[in-house]
Amino acid sequence: MSELRKDPITGRWVIIAAERKRRPLDFLPGKEDTVPPSGPCPFCQGNEDKTPPEIFALRDKGTKPNTPGWQVRVVPNKFPALRIEGELNPTRIGLFDMMNGVGAHEVVIENSAHDRGPSDYSQEEMGKVIQAYRERMLDLRKDDRVQYILIFKNHGRRAGASLGHSHTQLIALPEVPIQVKEELSAARRHLNNRKICLFCDILKQELDSSERVVLENENFVCLEPFAPRFPFETWIFPKEHRPHFFRISRQEEKSLSEILPQTLRRIKVALGDPPYNYIIHTSPLKEESGYYHWHLEIMPQLTRIAGFELGTGFFMNPISPEQAAQQLKEVG
Amino acid sequence: MSELRKDPITGRWVIIAAERKRRPLDFLPGKEDTVPPSGPCPFCQGNEDKTPPEIFALRDKGTKPNTPGWQVRVVPNKFPALRIEGELNPTRIGLFDMMNGVGAHEVVIENSAHDRGPSDYSQEEMGKVIQAYRERMLDLRKDDRVQYILIFKNHGRRAGASLGHSHTQLIALPEVPIQVKEELSAARRHLNNRKICLFCDILKQELDSSERVVLENENFVCLEPFAPRFPFETWIFPKEHRPHFFRISRQEEKSLSEILPQTLRRIKVALGDPPYNYIIHTSPLKEESGYYHWHLEIMPQLTRIAGFELGTGFFMNPISPEQAAQQLKEVG
Repeated sequence: MSELRKDPITGRWVIIAAERKRRPLDFLPGKEDTVPPSGPCPFCQGNEDKTPPEIFALRDKGTKPNTPGWQVRVVPNKFPALRIEGELNPTRIGLFDMMNGVGAHEVVIENSAHDRGPSDYSQEEMGKVIQAYRERMLDLRKDDRVQYILIFKNHGRRAGASLGHSHTQLIALPEVPIQVKEELSAARRHLNNRKICLFCDILKQELDSSERVVLENENFVCLEPFAPRFPFETWIFPKEHRPHFFRISRQEEKSLSEILPQTLRRIKVALGDPPYNYIIHTSPLKEESGYYHWHLEIMPQLTRIAGFELGTGFFMNPISPEQAAQQLKEVG
Repeated sequence: MSELRKDPITGRWVIIAAERKRRPLDFLPGKEDTVPPSGPCPFCQGNEDKTPPEIFALRDKGTKPNTPGWQVRVVPNKFPALRIEGELNPTRIGLFDMMNGVGAHEVVIENSAHDRGPSDYSQEEMGKVIQAYRERMLDLRKDDRVQYILIFKNHGRRAGASLGHSHTQLIALPEVPIQVKEELSAARRHLNNRKICLFCDILKQELDSSERVVLENENFVCLEPFAPRFPFETWIFPKEHRPHFFRISRQEEKSLSEILPQTLRRIKVALGDPPYNYIIHTSPLKEESGYYHWHLEIMPQLTRIAGFELGTGFFMNPISPEQAAQQLKEVG
């Protein structure tokens, strides 16, 4: 079983997942950029027996679980960082805190077609993916040990994807990540001082000036943030104040399923299908204060995180968000 | 001129360095791993005119600046993220803070030989590099605008190095990075509660158990941290409580020049010359409280930072530090 360990200096948690060492293609220094995956794709239709049994699927009426006929399919990760079985058993050894790697690690296979990704999806296809994200969150939050759920997508080998068939990962954590805690406390301070949600306040300022806004629709705004870590880093915000992603309305789900593929298409056209990560930032599951405002962050991986970023948490970005917004507007 | 911008949600500063876009080899999606640098190496002896004029050098008696005859040479970065000229001019636009990109960005050319790196250096050679680090810090701290100095090395293209000739970078910042502030406040809390430096306390526990200690000498301990972000992440600590790197004693300088190449040689043998970053974590220049304990962190880059890490600040590591320490001990 993997272990969760806390660094006593930074408060940062690390998953020591020794089992994942055997994951194909991973941990091959120097090789990961060139070695293609071999053998039949475990995420393709007809290969349902090559993954652990499905947890959730949207599929044609009358088709059975773990057989063809699905549009979206969620399975446990075959090389999980955390597992649902077992006890947390928090332990302290002198200055060090640790616990068992209890949680969940799932894979959302977004589409049955091997070579389609979110930038190709119709609104209807993306809608099914968003629905799967929501359903899994709603199910996993019933587990009292789960404090936070991270939904993240790695697209392209350089952004960390080990399989080409488009998929999203979900990790349910027994601890709220420190980065989320920090964002929450900034949001709390702002709400207490200014009587308005920090994110709503930022959105207002961005919509007023519009120089960093890329596009918007009925329920969402897509913009380049003021201080982006990465070239063409792009955020998508719900216009209404919504702390929890899993409380997304049907109308918002539809609206997000429109703006997300649109945004990814623009990034693809502007930058030539770059590797990217996208992440849903949402409130911790048990946080009912309502300070937070969920959003989706897209981070194209054109530059490398190196010594400077690792040593400081300061980032260096060679493109201003105003330039990036202009370019993404033009390719629209 | 570049700009420093602060993200109002995370408190994280970003350098928007539009000038660096034209840096050779940088920002070429997909190409950076394969395109070798072309033309004569600007860091080789005899090519001193291919860099900006030197700021500091250790050189043979009687040789002139910017001519051959040097052992270590420090020059301004040709594509600097920050510049020494100009005023900070902090500005606030609504919710957003920014200032001019004032600071310094220097390159320490560690050795005149093109194909030698720290794992090849003799104690004497490494000593000269350490001396250059110290001298530059002592000089730059005279500038009242400088709050923090980061010394970091990127080895290998995948760790962010754009030139093969071994060099270290130094960035002087007008703001203390948030990551350093967080470490400082954990150290302050610990000292106040337990009346002992957090880092001294960790060292004591590590030396008692020894399962993560790789090697030690008179003044330094080399160990794998309890919660490492990366496989084979390795830290080197001075045994005595020392907040500031630039106050390193002559004896410690000698001792560090021995243990650092030893450590890097073990990593090279164990992992086959992996790309890596090393970083000196030290106290902010004007922090005289003495809470902090400087150290050097080595991070081999065998895995990728992807969506999970970017979304949470949580890290996933497939190798336990105990396994890594064992392996590094065995190759000794």
